Amino acid sequence: MTKKNNKVNASILIIGNEILSGRTQDKNILFITNWLNTKCGISVSEIRIIPDVEKIIIDSVLAMSKKFNYVFTTGGIGPTHDDITAQSISRAFKVKYEYHPEAYMILENYYGKNKFNDGRKKMAKMPKGAKLIYNPSSAAPGFITNNVLSLPGVPSILISMIDNCKKFLVKGLEVHSKTLNLYTVESNISHKIGIIQNKYKKFVDIGSYPFFRLGKIGVSIVTRSTSLIKLKSVNIELLKLVKLKKIKILKI
Amino acid sequence: MTKKNNKVNASILIIGNEILSGRTQDKNILFITNWLNTKCGISVSEIRIIPDVEKIIIDSVLAMSKKFNYVFTTGGIGPTHDDITAQSISRAFKVKYEYHPEAYMILENYYGKNKFNDGRKKMAKMPKGAKLIYNPSSAAPGFITNNVLSLPGVPSILISMIDNCKKFLVKGLEVHSKTLNLYTVESNISHKIGIIQNKYKKFVDIGSYPFFRLGKIGVSIVTRSTSLIKLKSVNIELLKLVKLKKIKILKI
Repeated sequence: MTKKNNKVNASILIIGNEILSGRTQDKNILFITNWLNTKCGISVSEIRIIPDVEKIIIDSVLAMSKKFNYVFTTGGIGPTHDDITAQSISRAFKVKYEYHPEAYMILENYYGKNKFNDGRKKMAKMPKGAKLIYNPSSAAPGFITNNVLSLPGVPSILISMIDNCKKFLVKGLEVHSKTLNLYTVESNISHKIGIIQNKYKKFVDIGSYPFFRLGKIGVSIVTRSTSLIKLKSVNIELLKLVKLKKIKILKI
Repeated sequence: MTKKNNKVNASILIIGNEILSGRTQDKNILFITNWLNTKCGISVSEIRIIPDVEKIIIDSVLAMSKKFNYVFTTGGIGPTHDDITAQSISRAFKVKYEYHPEAYMILENYYGKNKFNDGRKKMAKMPKGAKLIYNPSSAAPGFITNNVLSLPGVPSILISMIDNCKKFLVKGLEVHSKTLNLYTVESNISHKIGIIQNKYKKFVDIGSYPFFRLGKIGVSIVTRSTSLIKLKSVNIELLKLVKLKKIKILKI
């Protein structure tokens, strides 16, 4: 990661029929959003989940690549017929889809010449000019094309690779957050919190999320900001409100 | 649900900073996609996760509402300042954002006149002409505006309401699916499966998903089709391939 920038954003494109069909619970969204927020100071602005269909991949990659600083794609870079991410990104950016010499070498070494069959060779085919994201767990690399970083869909492999994305990213300002868990209902505090949010709207995001815990209803008030000072000021005002309304705080 | 149609599709729009920030693991996607697939014969074509920002909600709702038969939104219909789904949908479709008389009555009865404060009243404000999706667990109704069905973000409440969406939907043909769990690696079978997929491309979708189980690597081959006959034919060909390659099947 090079320099620190003010605000850097990213989007995630999950490519895979298995999520759309309800077969698989996605786990990559939570992991990537957390990693980007906490390790890179990069906020995620939008996530899309789309099927393994070339035209849809092309349209989504182009739209998101224009709109956000980075696009992370997951899925569709394996050896099977439904793995079409690399060829679709090549078409999106109008570059050749061809063997990446280093990826070819990595995979040939990993499998051995005799077992390096066509399916496995396919994993070395990428958009021309792509840079590799190394894969320490199963060899087949991800790759970055312009501002689009392509990772596999299998969570354990993705997790093992993600730190290798860092060198391609510009770091943003870290976002700090604080959570107040209150034993109350949203509508008891919503009006006052709206006023506080309005006062700090340029600096702090306030989110309100109901929870149920051991049969009791509560609300988590989550404040997020790149400024620790503003975050503190908002939380002082929130605690005043809590005191005024005689609300019990749940300490976890 | 009225008549059966050939192919009916839907999209899901998750509205909520808490998913984008990595604070919350989304659970609604898996539930809604499964419900639509198995109970309604409706396939999900695209999912988007976006922040609580009016312009983004408006743009996404309009784009998805044009492209798909139905749009399901989740989140942003509670009493707090960051709940702006109803007003954003009103603006998207250029209709008034106003109290829905029946929703107002339901909520006033539920809370009692004395405790029916502004935050709670806000949950009765909707796009003019919206129809209610009743909520048996916490009263505040969802609503349907044109082809957009708006549900809450709290999973337990969403689950309790979803069957009340059925009467607004046209049922599609049921999609049948079959899974073969094989102790092999994708690249061992990917070429042949590509040929089978190509032969049946109009009728059957074949997906290939690696798994790890008790230290062993395997591949789940998932076939999906509205035609039970075509699904059977494909699976006969797959079993021939399994026999030829002497692959062990994992029975769950």
